[in-house]
Amino acid sequence: MRVAVIGASGYTGLELLRILLRHPEFEIAVVTSEQRAGARVGDAFPALRGLLDLGFEPNDPASIAKRVDLAFTALPHAASAPTVQALRGAGVRVLDLSADFRLRDAETYRAWYGEHKAAELLGSAVYGLPELYREALRGAELVAVPGCYPTSVLLPLVPFLRGGLIETDGIVVDSKSGVSGAGRKLDEGLLFSELADDCRAYKVGNQHRHVPEFEQEASAAAGEAVSISFVPHLLPTVRGIVTSVFVRPRAGLGTDAAREVLADAYAQERFVRVLPPGETPNLRCVRGSNFCDVAVFADERNGTLVLLSAIDNLVKGASGQAVQCANLACGLPEELALLEAPLVP
Amino acid sequence: MRVAVIGASGYTGLELLRILLRHPEFEIAVVTSEQRAGARVGDAFPALRGLLDLGFEPNDPASIAKRVDLAFTALPHAASAPTVQALRGAGVRVLDLSADFRLRDAETYRAWYGEHKAAELLGSAVYGLPELYREALRGAELVAVPGCYPTSVLLPLVPFLRGGLIETDGIVVDSKSGVSGAGRKLDEGLLFSELADDCRAYKVGNQHRHVPEFEQEASAAAGEAVSISFVPHLLPTVRGIVTSVFVRPRAGLGTDAAREVLADAYAQERFVRVLPPGETPNLRCVRGSNFCDVAVFADERNGTLVLLSAIDNLVKGASGQAVQCANLACGLPEELALLEAPLVP
Amino acid sequence: MRVAVIGASGYTGLELLRILLRHPEFEIAVVTSEQRAGARVGDAFPALRGLLDLGFEPNDPASIAKRVDLAFTALPHAASAPTVQALRGAGVRVLDLSADFRLRDAETYRAWYGEHKAAELLGSAVYGLPELYREALRGAELVAVPGCYPTSVLLPLVPFLRGGLIETDGIVVDSKSGVSGAGRKLDEGLLFSELADDCRAYKVGNQHRHVPEFEQEASAAAGEAVSISFVPHLLPTVRGIVTSVFVRPRAGLGTDAAREVLADAYAQERFVRVLPPGETPNLRCVRGSNFCDVAVFADERNGTLVLLSAIDNLVKGASGQAVQCANLACGLPEELALLEAPLVP
Amino acid sequence: MRVAVIGASGYTGLELLRILLRHPEFEIAVVTSEQRAGARVGDAFPALRGLLDLGFEPNDPASIAKRVDLAFTALPHAASAPTVQALRGAGVRVLDLSADFRLRDAETYRAWYGEHKAAELLGSAVYGLPELYREALRGAELVAVPGCYPTSVLLPLVPFLRGGLIETDGIVVDSKSGVSGAGRKLDEGLLFSELADDCRAYKVGNQHRHVPEFEQEASAAAGEAVSISFVPHLLPTVRGIVTSVFVRPRAGLGTDAAREVLADAYAQERFVRVLPPGETPNLRCVRGSNFCDVAVFADERNGTLVLLSAIDNLVKGASGQAVQCANLACGLPEELALLEAPLVP
Repeated sequence: MRVAVIGASGYTGLELLRILLRHPEFEIAVVTSEQRAGARVGDAFPALRGLLDLGFEPNDPASIAKRVDLAFTALPHAASAPTVQALRGAGVRVLDLSADFRLRDAETYRAWYGEHKAAELLGSAVYGLPELYREALRGAELVAVPGCYPTSVLLPLVPFLRGGLIETDGIVVDSKSGVSGAGRKLDEGLLFSELADDCRAYKVGNQHRHVPEFEQEASAAAGEAVSISFVPHLLPTVRGIVTSVFVRPRAGLGTDAAREVLADAYAQERFVRVLPPGETPNLRCVRGSNFCDVAVFADERNGTLVLLSAIDNLVKGASGQAVQCANLACGLPEELALLEAPLVP
Repeated sequence: MRVAVIGASGYTGLELLRILLRHPEFEIAVVTSEQRAGARVGDAFPALRGLLDLGFEPNDPASIAKRVDLAFTALPHAASAPTVQALRGAGVRVLDLSADFRLRDAETYRAWYGEHKAAELLGSAVYGLPELYREALRGAELVAVPGCYPTSVLLPLVPFLRGGLIETDGIVVDSKSGVSGAGRKLDEGLLFSELADDCRAYKVGNQHRHVPEFEQEASAAAGEAVSISFVPHLLPTVRGIVTSVFVRPRAGLGTDAAREVLADAYAQERFVRVLPPGETPNLRCVRGSNFCDVAVFADERNGTLVLLSAIDNLVKGASGQAVQCANLACGLPEELALLEAPLVP
Repeated sequence: MRVAVIGASGYTGLELLRILLRHPEFEIAVVTSEQRAGARVGDAFPALRGLLDLGFEPNDPASIAKRVDLAFTALPHAASAPTVQALRGAGVRVLDLSADFRLRDAETYRAWYGEHKAAELLGSAVYGLPELYREALRGAELVAVPGCYPTSVLLPLVPFLRGGLIETDGIVVDSKSGVSGAGRKLDEGLLFSELADDCRAYKVGNQHRHVPEFEQEASAAAGEAVSISFVPHLLPTVRGIVTSVFVRPRAGLGTDAAREVLADAYAQERFVRVLPPGETPNLRCVRGSNFCDVAVFADERNGTLVLLSAIDNLVKGASGQAVQCANLACGLPEELALLEAPLVP
Repeated sequence: MRVAVIGASGYTGLELLRILLRHPEFEIAVVTSEQRAGARVGDAFPALRGLLDLGFEPNDPASIAKRVDLAFTALPHAASAPTVQALRGAGVRVLDLSADFRLRDAETYRAWYGEHKAAELLGSAVYGLPELYREALRGAELVAVPGCYPTSVLLPLVPFLRGGLIETDGIVVDSKSGVSGAGRKLDEGLLFSELADDCRAYKVGNQHRHVPEFEQEASAAAGEAVSISFVPHLLPTVRGIVTSVFVRPRAGLGTDAAREVLADAYAQERFVRVLPPGETPNLRCVRGSNFCDVAVFADERNGTLVLLSAIDNLVKGASGQAVQCANLACGLPEELALLEAPLVP
């Protein structure tokens, strides 16, 4: 099956190449980058020298549609919608890694991102979290791959919401992300000398664009509107997200019982690892891999349940998840190209 | 004034030396280390070569008491109590950086640390957080310097508790600490190759020994028992703590009003900086300095107030705070030797 | 083909598991660790949970020999020789990652490591650098996998020595290595708080055990005794080595001509990438991969040729190279399981 | 004495503020920044909030000259010369941290930087390395503060050149620098996600602008033209430089004798620490301080002498050195404000 990676020179695009290079069924046929158009992949990204003999081309959906069966779009939000529209119009299956098709409500999209340029497609996009939407993803033609923070929040949280086991108000999330989540932007705040040895919160409360996304999915899981207070942080590392979700159980729910909730929900999942009692998720055990590690601890003294998760933001938080969805959409084994062991140490 | 640093070869001891070297009124007269006894300070710690011409000696309180007016004890908990007892018996003023005199209740101490070896002194120790106990610290003979996490939790939290402005149940704290907080222990988990590029929670809920300490002080501030759920993390950096405290306001309390609470509480404080609206505390702006930066954000949608702080765990979280207390105890200007600018970048 | 990883809980052992998990012809049948014997691999190394369902067993060569066709021995030097002896005696093909069979001269071995415990095997071991010894490695029964520094020194240097193009005296090497090269030793100097943000030389001149190893191979390439002065450094990162080799050309040899020497030597090599003019090797472009990137710059003003290289010390510097040799020894395609793209960013 | 910091918002400017804040004789009266003009220092650099109550102003030498006795100019090369010219014309003592007055030969300057805009001042500038030019610096009106790499190269090297103890051809230098040396430029290659966990050489051989500078001073010390091959690297850390200088002794010169050369040269120096036998310089022992640590190792087998050094590039490599020179120029004790202990851990 021939695939395109559109917007291949950003970090999620580059990570798609890294994963697809080991995929036995997908052949990388087209890579696009406005900025690097004309350059060979190996010259623009020396890490890939000797592994992928292709040149970057500019993004021309009409031309690409004739040459591939499936496209991964890794473009900035708003820029993605028209390309997706064109590709879908030409019958190409699309895995979109932008925010453009994650929010089902055009009004909400407008409030956070501006006018939607292909709102007619919102209804047909499937939210690409296989652990929640596996059946809908089989054969899906348009998949909205979730954001990195939402993946890290929803996987530990949804089983408790679906089970009606926790209060739906007052949920708070404290996340810590590697810097690659911010992309390769020329921003003074992203310079090495500004971030090394640092850690800081940013966009506190209801300011980050991922908030409406995980509230949408949390509300769907709970069957009622759920609002979540969010405190993301930048970590002095490149990859990975660890997240704490603080919730209050409706009835007494100790650590063991809460762990059973996760264990039951994910018993059949290959990529969600419910940690043994006492262990905590961490970045190194998921780095470079498609795993999401989860754990839960109850503090019954003050009625708090602490849900913890860890992912690699570029894999399970973006490009690995996209490939997982693509495998499902194409009727392939879900784990193809995704069982590479984490890079430790 | 002649001072001793007892247990000078651990990270807080070393940091005491770094600060005291610039102190105009304290002269370092004695430094002890069981492990390095006999070595010159500069040979054991090459960073200090050329700055301090002293040798480490073993800890002998009786001998030390004759030679100094004031002692900083930076020994492990339980090991500290007998030394403090001996020094106090000989009339030496003591700033204790261990946990031995922080908990006022001997029962609570026993539950977390074992039998107390000098419980008779518990009543006379002053909790060494000048912003809360300044008057008691003036002239104090025995000061229990707070733990690093409690300092980072209490400074943003106490003004809201004292004002009766927040619910006292369901408080949760998510902290992220540099690795130096764990000391120079030979523990596989503290090796560079195990921690670099990582971040993980540990001792989740009510497992960390600092919990009873900040609950004691939070309860005192609230005038009622307060329990706090705590999730500390290790950051892949050496120094610094950033803390998020999640609380629920009793009445509507927006970001601006909440910021005023902090601004009022700390208007006269030299070392607590209430950040301008929109800014968030971070490690680099406090590294190497005695500042505690604080901020607050309200998420009125779901009734959450997010209190944020940043300190250098070895300065305001330990040795700088000890010197601040010592200045107060000795009737000196509180900021002596403590106005060094943070090390940025 | 069934394989054992003996000494699987050190960093090179763990890296062998990571690589072998994706190998289509080798099945991991036995993993040993004295320290972790009895534990499941996934419990001891949570990163591998869900990927390898085996328990660690103690090292018993007689038992292992009955169950595998091939063994990777990743034991400390001196400890390795008796195990290799036993395995070879039972007809098992051995890839040894220790230093025990790298030095062909028992006297030299004794000077650096002490008495050799299986000196009779020295003559039959093949030095496992496929780019130098490919033919000898085909079908080899005992392979001595090179050290990480020697790999980074020899690949850029040997073509110039073989060609008689450089002076053989006064060669100096300045290397910078990630901390994982030191293993998971409980050594105060390897603690995170001691190494973070640091860089320092160690074992300067002729003190590091890798010196006799790369001198042996450099001398073989030159056809005369070559001595090399060596300055290794520890970098504040986990993986990777960058090396500078300073040599003096015999006749005028500009950058372009020198680059041709490398390009000719490695034209057919899959894992040695001679960089385009002007580019320099770096850690991120090889991290997690089996590549060795090399480059050369002439400074004709003062008669110096600068040879540069980069490898991942755990892959091309150890476990990846071992698998490359094993592929050759077993008559398999040399690159099996070794074409995974580097982990960037 | 009132001083100006012109170009105060770059890293060396910021570091000047950090050091001058503790200076007992210099009062910061003016700070300039084109980019931040109008902002308060504490708003632009939150680390300094509460420590310096000044606003940035645009650079207007005529106005500044009326208000200060001494100016530190921390402007980019070429931009600095006209400002220095104007300040000197108005009788202000100038410590220039740019490259504009380091090269005594206008031709050489032109070759590396372009036409000099104030060449008439070249003859009057004193090279600001107090260990080499102390007498000339006393009372100096214009000081050219050395580059960071030259400081790290010259301090270990010059005593051997002055003594005629080493060959003057074939000298090679391998340096490793923290990223702050590259300034706060908006360059994709300086982003955190591009540099973290990396190390690479750049501008190899004779391409870096510091080469003519250290060749000028090495030649002056040797009394003959000396050419030096240079391989700088970027380290994944913010501050610090470690340097290896490889030279060949003229006569047999063992480690002990070579160490004596350094010990004799720097016996009276407060800021150069000749390390005890066996110890190697490293970043952490000098971080934040004005020390330069040096060591030497002979490898007599192949006739190589390895000289090692470590400095903090922003202190002894820039702003600390500038203050040291200013102290000398003003007749103050040389070490004023410069004895702060290194920040370890």
